[in-house]
Amino acid sequence: MSEREAPVGPSKRRDRAEIEFSRIVAFSDGVFAIAITLLVLALEVPPGTDDLGQALRERNDELLAYAISFAVLGKLWLAHHRFFSSVARFDSTLMGLNLFYLAWIALVPFTSEVLGDYSDESAAVILYAANITGVSLTFVAQIAYCYRRDLVQPWAREYERRYAGPANFVVAGVFAASIPVALLSPTAATLMWLAIFVLGRRVGDRIAGKRGVR
Amino acid sequence: MSEREAPVGPSKRRDRAEIEFSRIVAFSDGVFAIAITLLVLALEVPPGTDDLGQALRERNDELLAYAISFAVLGKLWLAHHRFFSSVARFDSTLMGLNLFYLAWIALVPFTSEVLGDYSDESAAVILYAANITGVSLTFVAQIAYCYRRDLVQPWAREYERRYAGPANFVVAGVFAASIPVALLSPTAATLMWLAIFVLGRRVGDRIAGKRGVR
Amino acid sequence: MSEREAPVGPSKRRDRAEIEFSRIVAFSDGVFAIAITLLVLALEVPPGTDDLGQALRERNDELLAYAISFAVLGKLWLAHHRFFSSVARFDSTLMGLNLFYLAWIALVPFTSEVLGDYSDESAAVILYAANITGVSLTFVAQIAYCYRRDLVQPWAREYERRYAGPANFVVAGVFAASIPVALLSPTAATLMWLAIFVLGRRVGDRIAGKRGVR
Amino acid sequence: MSEREAPVGPSKRRDRAEIEFSRIVAFSDGVFAIAITLLVLALEVPPGTDDLGQALRERNDELLAYAISFAVLGKLWLAHHRFFSSVARFDSTLMGLNLFYLAWIALVPFTSEVLGDYSDESAAVILYAANITGVSLTFVAQIAYCYRRDLVQPWAREYERRYAGPANFVVAGVFAASIPVALLSPTAATLMWLAIFVLGRRVGDRIAGKRGVR
Repeated sequence: MSEREAPVGPSKRRDRAEIEFSRIVAFSDGVFAIAITLLVLALEVPPGTDDLGQALRERNDELLAYAISFAVLGKLWLAHHRFFSSVARFDSTLMGLNLFYLAWIALVPFTSEVLGDYSDESAAVILYAANITGVSLTFVAQIAYCYRRDLVQPWAREYERRYAGPANFVVAGVFAASIPVALLSPTAATLMWLAIFVLGRRVGDRIAGKRGVR
Repeated sequence: MSEREAPVGPSKRRDRAEIEFSRIVAFSDGVFAIAITLLVLALEVPPGTDDLGQALRERNDELLAYAISFAVLGKLWLAHHRFFSSVARFDSTLMGLNLFYLAWIALVPFTSEVLGDYSDESAAVILYAANITGVSLTFVAQIAYCYRRDLVQPWAREYERRYAGPANFVVAGVFAASIPVALLSPTAATLMWLAIFVLGRRVGDRIAGKRGVR
Repeated sequence: MSEREAPVGPSKRRDRAEIEFSRIVAFSDGVFAIAITLLVLALEVPPGTDDLGQALRERNDELLAYAISFAVLGKLWLAHHRFFSSVARFDSTLMGLNLFYLAWIALVPFTSEVLGDYSDESAAVILYAANITGVSLTFVAQIAYCYRRDLVQPWAREYERRYAGPANFVVAGVFAASIPVALLSPTAATLMWLAIFVLGRRVGDRIAGKRGVR
Repeated sequence: MSEREAPVGPSKRRDRAEIEFSRIVAFSDGVFAIAITLLVLALEVPPGTDDLGQALRERNDELLAYAISFAVLGKLWLAHHRFFSSVARFDSTLMGLNLFYLAWIALVPFTSEVLGDYSDESAAVILYAANITGVSLTFVAQIAYCYRRDLVQPWAREYERRYAGPANFVVAGVFAASIPVALLSPTAATLMWLAIFVLGRRVGDRIAGKRGVR
């Protein structure tokens, strides 16, 4: 129950310790896959009812929360997938940061269920926004740590610094900014999140294009 | 949280990016394995009862829904398994389409539970048929995209075009056609699904045989 | 949604299709890992109670069912693990048989929960015994098919034929035989299962020893 | 359903049986990933309430139990990860011990849920401490067995003997010692666990430093 590395140096080269690295990545993928599939448990089967069609239509908010959270977790996984494919080495601190990040990821099925059941309440929208803000900040922390400790492969550095890094800050910022908005209007806060999906790629392309990185 | 690829070209060759490709496939397999195993949560233990045998026999519809959904998800996984083993390259759009497809797959434990609890209601049968239609259409979309962008390995093209492609359309068609049927008779709609399993292989063999592909 | 193989021959050599083979094995392992971890969901937290210690002690039967099912699924996984490491080739029928087998495996969390809640009722013991009998028979069916189609590696044949094959029949036989016993005494049937664990290895060693296979 | 090895010798070299070894490790990782993600199911969405914010704040104990258990399982997984990367060979006894260990790991979502619902009751704290003590002892048993049977790679022996072995005994000892403490004060027992996390690394560094192992 110790998180210290075996005495082969402070950080391991990816090719020297490929098996262990792939275990960490596979563990992260597993948590993502389980969390994304557990989202469905938030959809409750209506108990004994006379008009099932009507009862199911009243679950629209739950289905919307499922769709939002599946898209959010899917995008987060793609970003995690892409970032870790550029990581050249790892150390015990990165493993700890990654676990802290996964603790926020694994919380999404809960906050998503609250959102589906109370979609018009500020508290539910704030809880969900706080969860995703926590995810984004711990992801940014991982990225920052990897750059400071030089754990990223050379070819990926330019791209990450110019494009992906800022994108993650934008996501964290929008979700954090939606928290006070939710106090006034839960719906407006939810629309702010959707804007990331609709506009995210276009803005990303423009940033990347301007800086000459494609 | 961006779904753009690293700047190594618009689509990656499978052998150049084998690790990342296998992560996508493993993630999909994970969602399938979790969804298929979560089906069991739809089987409810009868609460304190005097005649457990009788109470269990009354759960027959839930067991039937479990059997149908396990067979459906199993067959879908085999098809996904086979198709992705013929994919030579991938790009970010294919990853997005695959996630959209998995969102429909991960929904099956919910619609299956509704089917088991309300197997004689049109709304439950329609919901389930709509779910599988969504699965089939997003699978067809992936296949079509891969062909248009030339992401499929040469040896697989003939086979997919002549045999597997049409088979997927047949499945999507039967489930879509069962939706209006369910309004009149939920049982008839369920029998239409079973027909795919019983007749599917024979029809498939005949189509493949006629076209000289085995 | 077709289970037919791509046109590279009726059965694939394991080394030619190693990636696809490992996907099937990984999928099976995933279902085992999920099913074995879902067993814990059968343990219910006592709702608001004054004497938690007493309430937890009353859950002893649930804990016993958890322990039995974890041991059963663990042993089944080891057997599946060992058998598939001796399989040299696979075809679509073996994949179908394996999925049918997994459908019985994934049912264990349900029948185990019924057993934990109604451990002194014949119906619960019979349900559980029927489930494990189904598991054992579909496992025997996979083994028999692999031998008939010559899909097993040469070095494993002697061992499987003399030792492992009979062992699987013994397990299936004991669980099937416990079904009528459970009608008279659920406790006696449960003790029959435990005997497999306690005596299983000793008997196995004797059979293997007699035939000169270790 | 037999746990005996195929007749290639009493213990398998890791490089000769790399695929099977990685299956065992992947299975263990799967159980860890599922158990850690199932922790979220202990967080219950408040049923229809007028003041959701207040209702969520009353769930603080559940969130604390989630955080503790995520950290505990995360640290246990890192230790398991590190130890198994130093294992050179495996045999059927090690596989059995590992399954026994995983049975304790998979129990954590239950004992964690009890802890979150009854955090100020001695019985809940004792149950949780007993669970983690069981985990630690079965982990120590695996390590001891591997050393006795010489299954550990040479480079790892010194490190394990001087540093990791004692660390595991300390963890087991603290959790075992917290059981009688919980009878007097559940809060004091919980603080003892937190001390492992806060002090664990510092103490570990000092032990390792003193003995000249870094």
